[in-house]
Parts: sequence; structure tokens; C-alpha cells
Amino acid sequence: MKASEIARLVGGTLEGNGDPELVGVAPLERAGPDELSFLAHPRYLSYLGGARAGALLVSRALAGRVPTGPPRIVVADAHQALALLLPRLYPERSPEPGIHPTAVLDREAVLSEGTSIGPYAVIGRRARLGARVRIGAHTVVGDDCELGDDVVLHPHVALYAGVRIGARSILHSGVRVGVDGFGYVFSEGAHRKIPQVGWCRIGADVEIGANSTIDRGSVGPTEIGDDVKIDNLVHIGHNVRVGDHSVIVAQVGIAGSALIGRGVTLGGQAGINGHIQIGDGATIAAQAGVFGDVPAGATYSGYPARPHKQALRAQAGLFQLPELIKRIRELERAIRARARTGGARARSKE
Amino acid sequence: MKASEIARLVGGTLEGNGDPELVGVAPLERAGPDELSFLAHPRYLSYLGGARAGALLVSRALAGRVPTGPPRIVVADAHQALALLLPRLYPERSPEPGIHPTAVLDREAVLSEGTSIGPYAVIGRRARLGARVRIGAHTVVGDDCELGDDVVLHPHVALYAGVRIGARSILHSGVRVGVDGFGYVFSEGAHRKIPQVGWCRIGADVEIGANSTIDRGSVGPTEIGDDVKIDNLVHIGHNVRVGDHSVIVAQVGIAGSALIGRGVTLGGQAGINGHIQIGDGATIAAQAGVFGDVPAGATYSGYPARPHKQALRAQAGLFQLPELIKRIRELERAIRARARTGGARARSKE
Amino acid sequence: MKASEIARLVGGTLEGNGDPELVGVAPLERAGPDELSFLAHPRYLSYLGGARAGALLVSRALAGRVPTGPPRIVVADAHQALALLLPRLYPERSPEPGIHPTAVLDREAVLSEGTSIGPYAVIGRRARLGARVRIGAHTVVGDDCELGDDVVLHPHVALYAGVRIGARSILHSGVRVGVDGFGYVFSEGAHRKIPQVGWCRIGADVEIGANSTIDRGSVGPTEIGDDVKIDNLVHIGHNVRVGDHSVIVAQVGIAGSALIGRGVTLGGQAGINGHIQIGDGATIAAQAGVFGDVPAGATYSGYPARPHKQALRAQAGLFQLPELIKRIRELERAIRARARTGGARARSKE
Repeated sequence: MKASEIARLVGGTLEGNGDPELVGVAPLERAGPDELSFLAHPRYLSYLGGARAGALLVSRALAGRVPTGPPRIVVADAHQALALLLPRLYPERSPEPGIHPTAVLDREAVLSEGTSIGPYAVIGRRARLGARVRIGAHTVVGDDCELGDDVVLHPHVALYAGVRIGARSILHSGVRVGVDGFGYVFSEGAHRKIPQVGWCRIGADVEIGANSTIDRGSVGPTEIGDDVKIDNLVHIGHNVRVGDHSVIVAQVGIAGSALIGRGVTLGGQAGINGHIQIGDGATIAAQAGVFGDVPAGATYSGYPARPHKQALRAQAGLFQLPELIKRIRELERAIRARARTGGARARSKE
Repeated sequence: MKASEIARLVGGTLEGNGDPELVGVAPLERAGPDELSFLAHPRYLSYLGGARAGALLVSRALAGRVPTGPPRIVVADAHQALALLLPRLYPERSPEPGIHPTAVLDREAVLSEGTSIGPYAVIGRRARLGARVRIGAHTVVGDDCELGDDVVLHPHVALYAGVRIGARSILHSGVRVGVDGFGYVFSEGAHRKIPQVGWCRIGADVEIGANSTIDRGSVGPTEIGDDVKIDNLVHIGHNVRVGDHSVIVAQVGIAGSALIGRGVTLGGQAGINGHIQIGDGATIAAQAGVFGDVPAGATYSGYPARPHKQALRAQAGLFQLPELIKRIRELERAIRARARTGGARARSKE
Repeated sequence: MKASEIARLVGGTLEGNGDPELVGVAPLERAGPDELSFLAHPRYLSYLGGARAGALLVSRALAGRVPTGPPRIVVADAHQALALLLPRLYPERSPEPGIHPTAVLDREAVLSEGTSIGPYAVIGRRARLGARVRIGAHTVVGDDCELGDDVVLHPHVALYAGVRIGARSILHSGVRVGVDGFGYVFSEGAHRKIPQVGWCRIGADVEIGANSTIDRGSVGPTEIGDDVKIDNLVHIGHNVRVGDHSVIVAQVGIAGSALIGRGVTLGGQAGINGHIQIGDGATIAAQAGVFGDVPAGATYSGYPARPHKQALRAQAGLFQLPELIKRIRELERAIRARARTGGARARSKE
């Protein structure tokens, strides 16, 4: 693809020669003369020196800081341009539709046109698969599951019975959905399991990272909205609801019955307590421990999580503590010294 | 099931009409006229307004706060009543006993009556399965494993060689037991693996959540006691021992050779350092980082974990810090001002 | 194996009778008269009382504190001696080479001599396996993957397309490599996926614990160096590079594009922010949250991570806070009292 074609595709301004043919995209320190590279973050300006890329895709905010060199394509946001460009340069190799002879399909399973089912996949009773669904090797779709059109399940996914997944959602390898929630009562000296009789509904355009786990509801559903993006190794407990467009970074844990609003961001390794509410558009920083409700639009961080500015001030104070302790000691000394002289003066008056 | 029958089953007091036929249980905001709902937590009192449930199961402590409405069944603890009731309303659909023709069983594996083995399961040499054991699709039982009666392994479980699991224990999808522990010595410029030649013993009535991992002992065993409940994505290192009735919430990590007592609770995402002891009945709060021994019965929280009251006071202080810094500055000003006037006074006396 | 032979093998000094025949190694509290035990940590000195081991392997530093008892073998480091000894006492049972009849191999896959492939394994197009590679049951090797000689993939591993793994590396059950990274742009009201077109290269002599996940690069590679040891349930984001000999303990999360140097140690549950650098030989304590670069050789801990000594002082201050608050209150009282008497004195002079 010529640099000029790329500029047209991403709606960018070409500066320099538009003729070079580019066959791929690579990071600055690796790109060769037949590759496009990109600059989306000032952190990587220092890599520009040795760059040998055939052309450069640059976010407008950084364009002024890029010395002259290879032809460049200036865009509002280089990442956004990549999202448009990459599917063209790297067309996805979809498996051919078809059912591998080793797949085990229950007689009552319902398939649609264009479905691809990999080796050793197991499809349960009354499971319904939409058009063009792709099921990876060894993936297990439980009884009564429903998958929308164009759903992709990578190898080794397990859906327990009764899970519903909306169109175009992607589940990576090792994801478990509809797992029994963690519910017991302690009675007569031992834990008694509360049967988990609810279900699990995943919206459309959801992506779930490798080895993440989502529990079914205890009674009623666990619900993940549309366009929710979940990273690897995330845990979502029973009866949780996550609103549309929310983003959940790797290793987050959400305890049972928490309500996560729309457009919420949960940073990596954050923990959300059970039965609390995170308001729409809120942001929870990485590793935060959230034990109470968070209002819509707020940013919380730290342990226990507090409004981010308050948490920052507390942290700043924390690292001043050794010095504060010294200052308190000084003050005490000054007061004591004064008490002695004051006392002495008082005594001399008697 | 009539409301009156349910009241009898759970040992509750029926208030109102016992005739309505109830076919299921649902949360307050979803239950319809043919469903039972429940109230076990004051947080959900506000949902009572719009509730359309046919009857209500209420914990005694909350009964006074429930306005008159549908018939209700008052019990000591609504969760406990659910544990009794749900298996009756939702009888578990066990797979029929039988061995799927695609399962690979070693010739020396020993099976008992009533066993059910799913598609593509692999059972190793000399593995011994108790009565009514259920093995999910693709689950791998290593050589020399022993499973007690009524053990349930969901799909995609992997047991390394020599794992023993007590009766009635349930392992969810993606659980790995008997994994090599993390043991190396650094010598001649590289890590040398210490062979992990121990084994792993899981007690009876244990439940282990999806994608949790338990290492085998380095030498000797890793041991999980009876009635231990482990949530999703938990890591348990080599040579750890967990006492009976302990509860380990999602994403906890326990480093090698830690000793966890009986009846201990480890909150979500807590981390337990290696070679330390958590005494019987202790509680570790969510996200705590425990670096030293914890006495029996104590509650610890925070990082590094301390007795909970002490940790709470420290946290309270942390968020007062910006104000404390101001107060120290005031004091310093006052002292300086006084020093000046004191000095002035002293000088005027000369 | 006689005690005298063991002493010779590990280069230790035998004190006592070298004749006892030892058939295995066991921890102090379990070892019987035909077993060797060991003492590598002062914590376990108290177990020596009841020990019935046939002989004892002791680190030199502790030898003076061991009362006379069974014959002992004194070595520089008991763990290092175990690493030498255990493979001799417990020779690994390798599966016989051979391809299970149920394995699905693409016609274009390339195998070498001595390969062992377990039941239901799936090997993709153009995948190349080195000599003596061992593939566990159900493991999926994607298209165009390359495995060096003697690589071991335990059951239920999934390699996405184009993953390369160096010689002798070991991947435990449930590991996912080459997963799509977490990359989206938000545009026109929804997240648009940035195709993840990079790849993943794992070095030689790497070990990766159960259920850990490693993302492929977004463009370009994610790279794990040689002799890197990764524990269970670790997450490594796209474009991360980890230098040779680094050690990553369980449940660590490394966000995208972070650069981890050589010989780095990341403690359990630590979180590393995206786009930052951890210098060679640095140590990050368990549960630390690292948000900025860490210089080579430094030790950082806490949240947000700081140089360990600074973090320790801050923590010490944190737990002194309730007392400091009292002292500040005392000072304020003293100043006020003085202000009154000072004022009174001043007034009395008028």
C-alpha cells in the first residue's frame, strides 16, 4: 500500500513523498524501509533518531516535535488511525466454515450458516449458535447456551449451562463463564453450599481476556453490558452487573452483587467489594481497594479508595512523615526549653 | 410448591396467605407473582417498593422493617433457608452415569459404580475414581491420582500426577492441582530448577473456583483440609497447609510453606508471604499483605497487615495528614513568633 | 543411595555414619529413618527435636545450631544441594516418544525425532517442533508456532498463532501465549479494537506457571528473555520485554509496553504500569504498585512504589500516626496555655 493511499484511508495529511510501498507496521526501533511506523506518545520521541521506517504516522499534537525525515502522515490520533489501517494491511485469516469431524455436537444443538467449529469442541443440548460463529479447539459450550452472530470463542473456553452471549463478542482462551458463585452458609459446623441457580448474560461487542472468570447469578443473572472490554485474569462474582462501554483491566476482582455503571474504567488489579455501586463514568485507579459506593464521574484511588486528589495528598503526606516526626520533636524541644526558662523566670520572681 | 410448604421446609413462620404456588426464586426487582423473593440484607429494603413477588423470605432481624405486602416467611437467616430450599426447587440435573466413547482411559485406571466421564476426558495410569465421580469434558486426571466418592471435576480441570481428592469435593473449570512449585537455585549464572517431587492432598467437601492453581509440595505434601472453600483465580504455593473449614476468597495468593489454620478467612486479593503462620479462626481483610505470623482469632488488614483496629487508626490518620501538616506549620509559626517576642522581651530587659 | 554417596554427589562434608541407605527426601516433621531431610532456614530449627530422619542435609550457616543426632551432610547451601540430588533420587518419568492416535496434526506441521504428543493435542499449520518436544493432552499449538528442542507443554496449554519458544522451556497447564493485547480506541460512541498483529517470543530455559497469560505484541513482539522464571497466574501485556534471568512471582501483572531489565525480581501480586522501565537487577517487593521507572539495582516497595528504605520509614510513620496526633494536640494545648499566661503576664504589666 502506498503512503499516499494510507493517508487517504486514515484521513491524514501526507507530508513528503507518497510513493513508497509499505507492507506492514512496526514499532519505531524495528521498522524497516518498507514498513510504516507511528508516534502516539512523547515517551517514544527519543527513538526517532535511529528510525529507518519508510513512513511515519504521527498524532497531530506531536507533529511539531518530529524532525524532518521519512514522509509522514499527520492524523488527529495515531492509535485511531491504526485501528482503521491494520485490518487492511493484515486481513484476518478466518478459519473456513465447517465442523471438524472430531467435534461432539448434541443432537439438539442448533447451528446457523457459516459456523466454524474446531477439533474436539463440545456443544451441549439445545445450545443455539448464530451465523458465522467460530468455536475454537476444545471449547465447551454448555447446555442451553445461546451465542449471537459472529461470536468468537478461542480454544479452551468453557461456558457452563445457560450462558447467553451477544453478537460479535470475543472470548479468549481459558475464559470460564457461568461458574458457580461463591455462596455458602455455615451451619452445624460446616459450610453448606447455596445452590447457584441463576444465569449469565454477556452483551454484544464484548471482549474477554484469557483465563478470566465470570460467575453465574445465585438467583437471577450476572450481566455484562454491550461493548464492555475485559482484560486477562479478571474475576467477576455472582449477580454483578457491568454497564455498557465499561473497561476492566487485567486482574481486577469484582465481588458479588456489585453494580458497575456505564463507561466505568477499573484499573489493573483493582478490587471492588461486594454489594457496592460504582457510578457511570467513574474511574478506579490500578490496585485500588474500593469498599464503598463511588459517585458517577469520580476518580478514586488507593486503599481504602478515596477521591484521587485526596488520596494523592494523603500519599504525599505519607512520604513526608519522617520529616514531620522530626519537626514535631523540634517543637516539643522548643516548648520544653521555653517551659524551663519560663519556669525559671517564674521562680526567680517568687 | 405452596408458600405454606416452603415455610414448613425451612422452619419459618408464615405471615399471610399460604396458598400461592411458587415455581422459583428471584431477586426482589425481578421476581414475579409466581416466584419467591428474599430479603437478607438491609441494603435491599429500598427494592421492596416495586416488588411483585408472590411471597417473601425474610431474615428475622429485618422483618420489622418490611411493610405489609405479599405473604412472608420469617426465618432466622434467609440465606440459610435458601440453602435448604433451592435444591428442592431446582433439583440438580446430574449427567447420566456412563463413559463417553471418546474418553481415553488408561488400562490400569480403576473406576467405581455410577461414574460419569465426559467427552475427551483423559484418565491416567493407576488413577482410582470413587463411586459416582463426575468428570467433565476434556478434564485430565494424571497418573496415580485418587478421587473420593462423589467428586465432581468440571470441564478442563488438570490434575498432575499423584493428586488425592476427598469425597464430595468440587473443582471448577480450569483448576490446576499438583503443579510444580516455584523453586530454583541460582548457580553458575542461571537458575537451576529444584525438582518438585512432593504431592498434593485435597480434603473432603472442598470447593475450588475456576482457574485456581495449587502447587504440589517440593518434597512432602501441599495439603488442603476438609470443607475448605476456595474462590476463583486463587494461587496456593508448594508445601502450604490450609486447615479445615477455611475460606479463601478470589485472587488470594499464598506463597510457599505458609501454614493457614482452621476456620481462617482470607479476603479477596490478599497476599500471604511464604513460611508464615495464620492462626486458627483468624480473618485477613481483602487486599491485605501479610508478611508475618497472625495470632489465632485476630483480624488483620492493610499493607503491611496489622491488627485491624490499628490499621484503621493509621488509615484515619493518613487522611488527616494534610490537615496535620497545616497544624504543625501553625505551631512552628507560633513558636517562632513567641521566640521573637520572648527574645525581644529578653533583650529589652538587658 | 548411601549417605556417603550423597555427600560425595553434593560436594558436602559427612559428619557421622555414612552407611544408612536413603530412599527419598522428606521435610523434617515427616522424614523417616530411610529418608534424608534438610535444614536450609533457621525457622525450622524447632522441628529438629522430633526429627526421625536417617540423615540431614544442612546449610553451613546453620550447622553450628544443629544438636548431635542423625548423620549430617554439611553443604554451602542445602537448597542448591537438593537441586543436584533430587533428579538422582527421583528420576523423571518421561512419557515414551510417540504421537497419540487422537492428536490432530496439520499436514504441514513439522516434527522432529523423539517427540511425544498426548491425547487430543492439536498442532497447527506449519508449526515446527524441535527434538524431544513433549506436548501434553489437549494442548493447542497454533499455526506457524516454533518450539525449540526439549520444550515441554503441559496439558491444556494454548499457543496462539506465531509463538516461538526456545529450547528446554516448560509451560504449565493452562498457560496462554500470544493472546490479543488489550488495545482499543474509543470512537463514535464505542470501542474499536486495534488489531493485534504482533507476535510473541519466549526464550530458552523459561518456565511459566499454571494459568499465566502472555499477550502478543500489538505490532512487533512481546519478548521474554532466556532463563526467565514466571510463577502461576501472572499477566504480561502486549509489547512487554522481560530481560534474561528475571523472576516473576505469582499473580504479578505487567501492563503493556513495560520494559523489565535482566535479573529483575518482581514479588507476588506486584503491578507494573505500562510504558515504564525497571532497570537491570532491580527488586520489586510483593504487592508493590510501580507507576514510574525504577533504576537498575534498586529495591522498591509499597504503593505507589518508592525506594524500599523510604517506604519502610513512611510505613513506620504511618503506624505512629495516632500517637503523633496526640503529640500535636499536646503541643497546641501547651502553646495555647502559654499564650494565655503570656497574655495575662502582658496584661498584668499594663
